[in-house]
Amino acid sequence: MIRPPVDPTDALVVGVDFGTLSGRAAVVRAADGAELGTAVHAYTHAVVTDALPGRPDLRLPPDWALQVPSDYVDVLRRAVPEAVAAAGVDPARVVGIATDFTACTMVPTLRDGTPLNEVPDLADEPHAYTKLWRHHAAQPQAHRINALAAERGESWLPRYGGFISSEWEFAKGLQILEEAPAVYARTERWVEAADWIVWQLCGRYVRNACSAGYKGILQDGAYPGRDFLAALNPAFAGFAETKVAHEIGELGAVAGTLTAEAAGWTGLPEGIAVAVGNVDAHVTAAAANAVRPGQMVAIMGTSTCHVMSSDVLREVPGMCGVVDGGIVSGLWGYEAGQSGVGDIFGWFVEHGVPPAHHEAARARGLGIHEYLTELAAGQAVGEHGLVALDWHSGNRSVLVDHELSGVVVGQTLATRPEDTYRALLEATAFGTRMIVETFAASGVPVTELIVSGGLTRNALLMQIYADVTRLPLTVVETGQGPALGSAIHAAVAAGVHPDMPTAAAAMGRVREGAHLPDEESAKSYDALFAEYTRLHDHFGRGGDDVMHRLRAIRREARAQREGDLDA
Amino acid sequence: MIRPPVDPTDALVVGVDFGTLSGRAAVVRAADGAELGTAVHAYTHAVVTDALPGRPDLRLPPDWALQVPSDYVDVLRRAVPEAVAAAGVDPARVVGIATDFTACTMVPTLRDGTPLNEVPDLADEPHAYTKLWRHHAAQPQAHRINALAAERGESWLPRYGGFISSEWEFAKGLQILEEAPAVYARTERWVEAADWIVWQLCGRYVRNACSAGYKGILQDGAYPGRDFLAALNPAFAGFAETKVAHEIGELGAVAGTLTAEAAGWTGLPEGIAVAVGNVDAHVTAAAANAVRPGQMVAIMGTSTCHVMSSDVLREVPGMCGVVDGGIVSGLWGYEAGQSGVGDIFGWFVEHGVPPAHHEAARARGLGIHEYLTELAAGQAVGEHGLVALDWHSGNRSVLVDHELSGVVVGQTLATRPEDTYRALLEATAFGTRMIVETFAASGVPVTELIVSGGLTRNALLMQIYADVTRLPLTVVETGQGPALGSAIHAAVAAGVHPDMPTAAAAMGRVREGAHLPDEESAKSYDALFAEYTRLHDHFGRGGDDVMHRLRAIRREARAQREGDLDA
Repeated sequence: MIRPPVDPTDALVVGVDFGTLSGRAAVVRAADGAELGTAVHAYTHAVVTDALPGRPDLRLPPDWALQVPSDYVDVLRRAVPEAVAAAGVDPARVVGIATDFTACTMVPTLRDGTPLNEVPDLADEPHAYTKLWRHHAAQPQAHRINALAAERGESWLPRYGGFISSEWEFAKGLQILEEAPAVYARTERWVEAADWIVWQLCGRYVRNACSAGYKGILQDGAYPGRDFLAALNPAFAGFAETKVAHEIGELGAVAGTLTAEAAGWTGLPEGIAVAVGNVDAHVTAAAANAVRPGQMVAIMGTSTCHVMSSDVLREVPGMCGVVDGGIVSGLWGYEAGQSGVGDIFGWFVEHGVPPAHHEAARARGLGIHEYLTELAAGQAVGEHGLVALDWHSGNRSVLVDHELSGVVVGQTLATRPEDTYRALLEATAFGTRMIVETFAASGVPVTELIVSGGLTRNALLMQIYADVTRLPLTVVETGQGPALGSAIHAAVAAGVHPDMPTAAAAMGRVREGAHLPDEESAKSYDALFAEYTRLHDHFGRGGDDVMHRLRAIRREARAQREGDLDA
Repeated sequence: MIRPPVDPTDALVVGVDFGTLSGRAAVVRAADGAELGTAVHAYTHAVVTDALPGRPDLRLPPDWALQVPSDYVDVLRRAVPEAVAAAGVDPARVVGIATDFTACTMVPTLRDGTPLNEVPDLADEPHAYTKLWRHHAAQPQAHRINALAAERGESWLPRYGGFISSEWEFAKGLQILEEAPAVYARTERWVEAADWIVWQLCGRYVRNACSAGYKGILQDGAYPGRDFLAALNPAFAGFAETKVAHEIGELGAVAGTLTAEAAGWTGLPEGIAVAVGNVDAHVTAAAANAVRPGQMVAIMGTSTCHVMSSDVLREVPGMCGVVDGGIVSGLWGYEAGQSGVGDIFGWFVEHGVPPAHHEAARARGLGIHEYLTELAAGQAVGEHGLVALDWHSGNRSVLVDHELSGVVVGQTLATRPEDTYRALLEATAFGTRMIVETFAASGVPVTELIVSGGLTRNALLMQIYADVTRLPLTVVETGQGPALGSAIHAAVAAGVHPDMPTAAAAMGRVREGAHLPDEESAKSYDALFAEYTRLHDHFGRGGDDVMHRLRAIRREARAQREGDLDA
């Protein structure tokens, strides 16, 4: 098939953002970033935490979070054509497609990319499924990786703030080896979902430089060595070279062209450019046109990822990673994160809000989040008498410990759901301030906070972030920052723009100074942040290791009960 | 009117238990304690915490808890006749009536007993209303009383574990003086509700020895002196002698006889014996036939009160008080307590349980407490991964600090309402173990836990208490331990039995060994209790004073917002 040439001023690109619960496609004009149409498709299996799909008898332990890769392909089949239809455009105008993904989400596959859970005799193996970023059951392995790397003085460790996360490739891989060696043996490739989806689109496996650097411990051209891996577990010695290492693709480069099969799924022209994969947070920096040092982008959704470029290389305690050119070529790309943000608010409204509030919200025609926000917004800072730690999903930065857990201090019989809700909103803002202050104290100052993602619609939450951090908030003016960011990468891959900075300047869209700190509130929050910091250090830095002990007790109690049931 | 003599074997007595939300009357056979009929009447105004009755514009600050005395009289008018009717007996057989009350619940009155809130020009004065035991807004006054008493080495202070509670007569009285001096000036009598209700029944004001000792700081025949009170506040110098001191009545003695008016309310014969008032927890010791040293009676309801007799006088840190013959003549009567127990469970199910659980409970035909209990009962000890502090209503023993607040540690996105519910049940058991261990460490060992009150119906809760304390649980075999205890006092006052021990032996009813500790569970709970203890000491003994600071922040924020609203 021969494609007619597309006029560059008329060219369209498609960005697809794969989130925790759904994928979102956006059709974008390459010239100026105008969003012409979007569509969302929710994953059929969402997040698998309780039992394997269709097998209620195969229960999962706590802290597990799996996904089903065919759900990702369904997004290509459904959301992309729907976005094109919503845009009302001729799909022939689309010149490129790019994708971004949650990270580190890992698919164990055969050599040809077939996910292991689709291999008939492995369908009942929990370890054959995709491990979502928030699968936190590899913490024991992460502890051992960190202890051993520190003991041996591995040169890559400081690049990750001194901590390799249990969410990343090596900890999750080691967990498979040690809990299901047979599944490990069948894992011919250990693939970032970000790269797996690109593999489906263009038929080629290319590792994106961003994931490889931030999640795969690829630093200065090398992965952790055989001897290090063997010291963790002799059977792990060949992990990096046989299952992880692969051709690297630079961000915004072409991974390949759309296959006939993928063209059939998406309705897009066969042969258009498919960009190298990327991480949702990192592509958003493009949508935010955040290319200068000091501009921290916070992508706020179920979790928050912070990315920032800087002209200096520093060791920031508890950062997720620093990668040369990891976001913008020529600058050091820093990443930090909070494991639970929107997830915590969602958990609270699902499991901690009584019928009366739900009824009142319905009567007012409001969502439950909006209703609680409205009630909470009427309070003065500190009026609820609470302070919380936002660790219900662990702590990614700056403690890097997923066995930490949530705390609310100060509840009384007068505490109402809106009080706790506001305290949880604030706790996540304190978590961001902790990260900002840690960067600043390490010589990497933050001067502007650029926020993106669904949570930016909550004006109370945004004002709390401005007040707590005392930073001006710039808002990415699109409901789909990652999808737009991916579209920008698609435009570079398709050659419509010569490089990322040019494309970001042309297509990114932000509203500067959308929320400015209020000095009175900021002062009041200083007092509450001091309380947060004290609790943070007490529970997170060894004052009282109760959270770790509670996890151990929980594991033991559960194992014992299951043993009793089996007996 | 001349009453025909009643055959002692046929004599009936009435006990009326005034609780936090309702009053309960029981008609009891004096010979053997058989309960022939009971009835409950809920207080119309329940607990007033938000705004004065009928005056939604007159908002109350946090920590306030008021009641309306006419609600108590309504119990006499409704519950007593209904109990007699339910018993199907001739009211002429009733030879005595006794009452017990929450404590320390205080009624400010004129010289004739008229409650100040019934004085027309004072109806809009919050301080003119009855201060319920759980009114906790006098904590600043309590702190000053304790600091000054410690500084001056007042001899009565060790009799109260070193702490006078903000719930008691002096702190609450001082709060009125300092916040509403005009109301203080009109307070001619500062009356325990336990004595006010007896005053309504027999037309005579007699202070019961129990309240006077435990709540009124009457020790060795004297109240705190003028010079001490003047040092607190010069205008407070005459408080004890003018508003508090009054004729003392011994427990089980006759305060007077039923007036014609009260006979009209209750339908009982005019002229029958009315016993001296008493405290709900203390009368329950009679129903539990707990007259030996080491038998600790826990009366579990919205709060828990612990009473125990001992042959030794010791200073137990944080006990509520020790009074010579305060429970049983010839023994030292000790009291301790937990400010929030059933109240915490009630708060949680009202404000923290989502619609799905309520619907599931309804579908199963269960109450929400029963449903959560059923779910929680399926767990192994520690499986929820949580530990909580039971301080949502402050801590009465052993810390005596009502500015403490609740904490739950260990919540994750996998935490469900039944997990938190069970953690709260356990937290109250840990609170009891803390009290038991503190008594033991002070040389007053506890060998048996006798439980009474509505919460004894929850078998899971009872087993948790047995496992956590490693004590055999004896259950008072009546749903109305206090009402039965009052009836026993009525039988003594009416002369059916010669003394309390004889009456208690004849009329008390208990099931010994109703719940025995399970050693496996007890061991598991040792680990969780160690966590509780660490958190208890960290937050309660100065490790981190965050709870006090949060209270101060809350007060300030609220005052500021109200200032802004007024401006």
